[in-house]
Amino acid sequence: MDPKRGICFWFTMGSTYTYLTVMRLPELEEAIGIPFRWRPFHLLTILQEMNHVPFADKPAKAAYMWRDIARRADMYGIPVRVPAPYPAKRSIAANQVALVGFAEGWGKEFVRAAYRRWFLLGQETGSERNLSESLKEVGQSPERVLQLAEQDEISRMLQSETAAARALGIFGSPTFSIEHEIFWGDDRLDDAVAWYQQGSIRRGPAP
Amino acid sequence: MDPKRGICFWFTMGSTYTYLTVMRLPELEEAIGIPFRWRPFHLLTILQEMNHVPFADKPAKAAYMWRDIARRADMYGIPVRVPAPYPAKRSIAANQVALVGFAEGWGKEFVRAAYRRWFLLGQETGSERNLSESLKEVGQSPERVLQLAEQDEISRMLQSETAAARALGIFGSPTFSIEHEIFWGDDRLDDAVAWYQQGSIRRGPAP
Repeated sequence: MDPKRGICFWFTMGSTYTYLTVMRLPELEEAIGIPFRWRPFHLLTILQEMNHVPFADKPAKAAYMWRDIARRADMYGIPVRVPAPYPAKRSIAANQVALVGFAEGWGKEFVRAAYRRWFLLGQETGSERNLSESLKEVGQSPERVLQLAEQDEISRMLQSETAAARALGIFGSPTFSIEHEIFWGDDRLDDAVAWYQQGSIRRGPAP
Repeated sequence: MDPKRGICFWFTMGSTYTYLTVMRLPELEEAIGIPFRWRPFHLLTILQEMNHVPFADKPAKAAYMWRDIARRADMYGIPVRVPAPYPAKRSIAANQVALVGFAEGWGKEFVRAAYRRWFLLGQETGSERNLSESLKEVGQSPERVLQLAEQDEISRMLQSETAAARALGIFGSPTFSIEHEIFWGDDRLDDAVAWYQQGSIRRGPAP
């Protein structure tokens, strides 16, 4: 992608902090006039290769994560009920459905619907209930889409996007990229925007 | 500590991101008029209990860390030469000397001198050269201080501070605490200050 055509937003639907980004990004995109390209990938593959388990086996870190997400959701004015069920065991299914959605034009709405169900109703992303109810909410037939999402073409597309993420050095979600520059974490979104606008993350107008 | 008497700044001298905090905190403390209590602890003990290795065995994450630190140092106007040697293998010695320094009143200056040597001259904190040159820089006799730092009393004090950090749920450096509320990372310093001032992290004046 031509870097001046936008910022890539890489995410995986098992990531907790990504809730903050999917809830606040559409408004920000409109306010600043920079297009974001939403790119689902399967982070779990990369984490397993790194032998890295971010939270599930680390109770102190997990407890902090929920508290930090709750405080930051409050800061952004985003409703939240934490802890949400974790980990989301079938995040791969949610990532596959999201890919179908971006190909067909309803991806962003699906991702937001699925995340709201996870963080407000306690339904894991990728669970049968979350998938079918989120799809209905965005006007899609669960039967049709779930069948599509299981086809080899979508599996290969998810693998190829994951390979592209790995090649950029991505190891977490959300990550923002502008050419080869990557910014990891919802809390680096401002850095990514500043970099896109001026090639550094210094705040304020470019020198 | 009475929470209204300040914010605890917990840190360990093997932590890379802590460089950003020790370089920018003194100016911030003065600008906002909130006292910070600098509290060295030995994070490595807690990480080993968690079986958690933050960067050393994860090349993609380590590469990102150095890039993120370089960008953020530039944002703050802090000079930096990265990658610095990592990990700092004798950070325990630097933590012990820092404890002596805070007991005697020159702790903050020592910590900053040692971090500058690590991040500008490539001398690991805790190495003999870093310790003795940083001590001389802040007007202390390396011979006297290093002997003091090895005494049981200082070891016990470091263990006791580490236990206090563990009890708060701390698992990283820097961490800021106000009563039982903890904020992890140099990038959460603003959140900690907002919390101290108004009991939430919403920006702007309290409602």
